[in-house]
Amino acid sequence: MFRFTLTATDGPARAGVIETPRGAIRTPAFMPVGTAATVKAMLPESVAATGADVLLGNTYHLMLRPGAERVARLGGLHRFMNWEKPILTDSGGFQVMSLAELRKLGEEGVRFRSHVDGSAHFLTPERSMEIQRLLGSDIVMAFDECPALPAPRDTIAASMALSMRWAQRSRDAFGDRPGHALFGIQQGGLERDLREESAAALKAIGFDGYAIGGLAVGEGQAAMFGVLDYATAMLPADRPRYLMGVGKPDDIVGAVKRGVDMMDCVLPTRSGRTGQALTRRGAVNIKNARHAEDPRPLDPDCACPCCRGYSRAYLHHVFKSGEIIASMLLTWHNLHYFQELMAEMRAAIAEGRFSAFEAAFGARRAEGDIPRE
Amino acid sequence: MFRFTLTATDGPARAGVIETPRGAIRTPAFMPVGTAATVKAMLPESVAATGADVLLGNTYHLMLRPGAERVARLGGLHRFMNWEKPILTDSGGFQVMSLAELRKLGEEGVRFRSHVDGSAHFLTPERSMEIQRLLGSDIVMAFDECPALPAPRDTIAASMALSMRWAQRSRDAFGDRPGHALFGIQQGGLERDLREESAAALKAIGFDGYAIGGLAVGEGQAAMFGVLDYATAMLPADRPRYLMGVGKPDDIVGAVKRGVDMMDCVLPTRSGRTGQALTRRGAVNIKNARHAEDPRPLDPDCACPCCRGYSRAYLHHVFKSGEIIASMLLTWHNLHYFQELMAEMRAAIAEGRFSAFEAAFGARRAEGDIPRE
Repeated sequence: MFRFTLTATDGPARAGVIETPRGAIRTPAFMPVGTAATVKAMLPESVAATGADVLLGNTYHLMLRPGAERVARLGGLHRFMNWEKPILTDSGGFQVMSLAELRKLGEEGVRFRSHVDGSAHFLTPERSMEIQRLLGSDIVMAFDECPALPAPRDTIAASMALSMRWAQRSRDAFGDRPGHALFGIQQGGLERDLREESAAALKAIGFDGYAIGGLAVGEGQAAMFGVLDYATAMLPADRPRYLMGVGKPDDIVGAVKRGVDMMDCVLPTRSGRTGQALTRRGAVNIKNARHAEDPRPLDPDCACPCCRGYSRAYLHHVFKSGEIIASMLLTWHNLHYFQELMAEMRAAIAEGRFSAFEAAFGARRAEGDIPRE
Repeated sequence: MFRFTLTATDGPARAGVIETPRGAIRTPAFMPVGTAATVKAMLPESVAATGADVLLGNTYHLMLRPGAERVARLGGLHRFMNWEKPILTDSGGFQVMSLAELRKLGEEGVRFRSHVDGSAHFLTPERSMEIQRLLGSDIVMAFDECPALPAPRDTIAASMALSMRWAQRSRDAFGDRPGHALFGIQQGGLERDLREESAAALKAIGFDGYAIGGLAVGEGQAAMFGVLDYATAMLPADRPRYLMGVGKPDDIVGAVKRGVDMMDCVLPTRSGRTGQALTRRGAVNIKNARHAEDPRPLDPDCACPCCRGYSRAYLHHVFKSGEIIASMLLTWHNLHYFQELMAEMRAAIAEGRFSAFEAAFGARRAEGDIPRE
């Protein structure tokens, strides 16, 4: 059982639910990233407490360490990392191209050496499907690759065409797995006709959901929104649309506005570990000396454990002291804020007031951080 | 209101309760160490969930960063670190002598430079009392110093005599603070007559509790137990006895057997961050490759979140991957085990079966780690 149901639309923005054997995913959904079988600095029950319905796992990292076969022998990724809700895994293609060493890309797949121990690997659509099956992923991504932007049109076109051939091979290798979904990934860079061509190829193959790939790779928000203005409508309305690797809160709001249902990004977790809190009023750099004696929470309107229990002065102190609790609290806050943002958007769409939500969201950010008394 | 009540004895071993305005401390008590206003890698509610009734805070670290006056302006240490139960603070004396730079010890106090930023400081009995008051400590320790062992008898005698003069100055500076306790610290190294002299000096001054200092500084377990065999009986039976900086599980059991009521140590937290789990069956080094595919928990009889939710294989993976969750889970397990050990000893004393408990404790450790099937 894997079923997507739209429950409300408000212009291009959509709210719905993806039902899976491991539970429902409310959309628009933000997926925290659990790269190496952990959402960094969080216990899984805490991730669930922020409101996350689904995690993202990284095929590239997990195939290298601890290895997909080992995870399978240990009962699968859910059991391994103590997370019983749905998991989406990426295909490994994007991260091989950005992280691995001595990469060699060919029609068959990508040869590379591990950035962990230098070991040799060969990742293909078929092997990616096998790894994601071994991990026990609920939502499997087709194997693809994409160039960093800007790139020449010919490069983007050739890459997209290769990814579409890999999409067919992924579909063939995935087979029929009830309760598990396979998503295709649209490519084509910033070229509208290539995006159209890619979407047509994916629809001809047929997937359970459709991702928009090749964005958030350096093109900037305006260019990304420019693509989303047309790209979502190229994809089937009755399937979830997933924008990969996005993003900042205003990226997320703009993507949902344009019809995106799912997103993932390391921003809330990575920012938390580097002392940056993301709030309704924008970013707060807790390292800044102005927080050293500030008794107020990061966001007085936030109900997360960090904002309910700790002052900015405390967060400043533990961050400057290199204490692990700084990463734990800031990550928790950031993930809580992201999930609350998604919940607010779902409610706004359900009630037909997404435009008003967006205006209020922008106005609050424009006000900036809370002033000192 | 600060009151110690003995509820049971079993030979020299004692069980009781210390009542404070911030809650009861069940004894024998193990105090996790919250050096810089955090028990490393733990949220305070998780520390409480392990069964800890009281934390230790370090005067030396907190006076340097964020500073005692700043903590006071922010509402005191309890509020600052979000821990509402009792806090005991050390006097700073021991850590100044082991961590600070350019130390200069005199009758008046210790001049030193901060290991954090090189700033100059002068710590005296009076300033130590002031800092601990500013922090809002519930149990304040008298300012003392002690040499590392082995040391010449003359050195130990002179140091003890100085600490006893400082104990009187601490008592005078502390004044009358209802609901707050001041503990004196017995010194004298491994010299029985010096321990007797020190105990007599402290009893003449009069304290709410008595610590045994100058042990666990390199003398070894046999020598430490040799001192504890007579030192506890030198201290008033109706006041809590606190053995500072101890220790390993077998140190703790041996200390309780000899009439100690309170202890603290960084071992469970520090070991957790370096991949060492402490269990009923001894230590488990999770870095060891033999755990890489072991589906069993650290300790199948442990009810902590780490043992309930995660395999050794997972802990091995996240530790080898440098993930923060490794420190979080191993620390939680270790603190849980230490608190469970204290609870088992309290029950054994209450039921007059401490000898049987001790024998079973030793037998289980002698069995070693659980064997593979």
